[in-house]
This record gives sequence, structure tokens and C-alpha cells, in this order.
Amino acid sequence: MVITRATEYAIRAVLHMAMQPPGVTVLKKDICREQEVTPAFLTKILQPLIKAGIVGSQRGVRGGFYLSRSADTITLLDVIRAEEGPLHLNLCLLKDGNCTRENYCPVQRVWQNAREQLTATLNGYTFAQLSEMARQNQPLPPP
Amino acid sequence: MVITRATEYAIRAVLHMAMQPPGVTVLKKDICREQEVTPAFLTKILQPLIKAGIVGSQRGVRGGFYLSRSADTITLLDVIRAEEGPLHLNLCLLKDGNCTRENYCPVQRVWQNAREQLTATLNGYTFAQLSEMARQNQPLPPP
Repeated sequence: MVITRATEYAIRAVLHMAMQPPGVTVLKKDICREQEVTPAFLTKILQPLIKAGIVGSQRGVRGGFYLSRSADTITLLDVIRAEEGPLHLNLCLLKDGNCTRENYCPVQRVWQNAREQLTATLNGYTFAQLSEMARQNQPLPPP
Repeated sequence: MVITRATEYAIRAVLHMAMQPPGVTVLKKDICREQEVTPAFLTKILQPLIKAGIVGSQRGVRGGFYLSRSADTITLLDVIRAEEGPLHLNLCLLKDGNCTRENYCPVQRVWQNAREQLTATLNGYTFAQLSEMARQNQPLPPP
């Protein structure tokens, strides 16, 4: 599994915001109801996105969340990276290098190829595209 | 992460077998030494491969493991599937369906595309190719 449940909910929450007219703050309780999450969990999963400059937060009774930048500049990969750091498909490509093998390992190259492909795919979809597709209820174009 | 540490070791063990001349049994202790795993762990991670007809087991003092079929018919995906079942990158595509959303969800389509790409990549490399590359210490050709 590449992403966690928390990231999956974060993606849905960002999509929810992306489907609003630009500049509109979505009430926290509306996201919670729609995404079936508690307010505490929502705040927790949105923190990394606020820190990354993807989501903004408004306090108060009518408090909620909004996209800090245009939905056509936010890709799926941006949200996943903000939540989880760089993608990894297996252990040998982890930053600190679990692999201590001295011999040439061809499998590492395969994982590297696969990771690059996946990264490109997830970077190829913006939330503007995703919200348009959701609105039109249409299949996605190829990446 | 798509695969576990156990699967990563299983892949290495199969590559080790694939690098032998056809029909040669690799001594259990040789795989253990080379892959830095205990005999109990090796037996455990190879069980699903034996069940899947990928690896054969020979008992006795000179006991060990060998490939049950030609290395050019065994892909990386075969080994991963035998160890872990079908690949999943996130929750919404799991077999039993964690997703109960009634509305059309464009993100599911993206994951589906990404999973199909990854599956094709991992299915595109046989252990015959990988062992040849390891032998020649050469970069892999594109999938």
C-alpha cells in the first residue's frame, strides 16, 4: 500500500474544497459530514497540508478550510507528498538506505522505474481536473 | 509501501536461484548466508512460492531450493502476487471494498490507472532478464 487511510481522507477533503468556487471556505462541519470523519481527525490530517501551503484555515464559528492556491496548481502527488513524504514502493529505495548490498542489484532499478512512473502519474492530475471530472461524472482522460 | 520486507527477501532468493544453471538446487545455507536471513525465515517466505509452483524444495542434508519452472516464465509480479496477493496502492481498491461512497469518485480512477501501470511494469521483467542483468552488471532496458 502506497498511502495510508489518513492520506486517502486528506485527498477527499482537498477534492471537496476544490469543488467550491475559488475563495470559498468550506465549513469544517460540512467536510466532516460529507467525508464521514470527526473534527479532530480532519484537523489532524489537514495540518500537513496547511504547513505545505496547500490548504488555509479560518477560525471561528463559521470556521473552515479553503485551498491556499488555485486547484489547477495542486496535483495528487502534492497532497500525498505533504502527508507522507516521498513515495516509496519498497524498502530498498528508502532514503536512509535499508539496502547494504554491495553487489549490483537489478531489482532496485525496476523499483526505481516503477516509482518514477507512479510519481509521474500522480503528478499528472490536478485537483482542478479531478473536480471537473467529478462534476461531469466522467471517466478520466489518460495521464 | 507496496511490498513487505518478507517479499523483498523472497525476490532476492528467487533471483539467487535464477542465477544458477537450470535444474541446480541451491543449498539452503548458501541462500541464508548470501541473503543474510535465518533458515526459519527463509522457509517461511518461500512457502507461498512453493505453493504457487514457482519454487521447489529438496529435503535432506544437501537440501535446498530450486526454481520449479524456467526463469523466463517467472515475472517479478508472479513472486509479489504469490507472497502478498493482488497489488493495492490504496484502500479504495481493496477487494472487499472499503469505499462505501455512492457518488462518482474520480480519484478511484487515478488509482486504478496507477495500479494497472505498476502491474504491467512488474509483469514486464522476468527473472531470466534480471539474472542476466545482474550477471552483466548492466542497467535494465525500459519495460
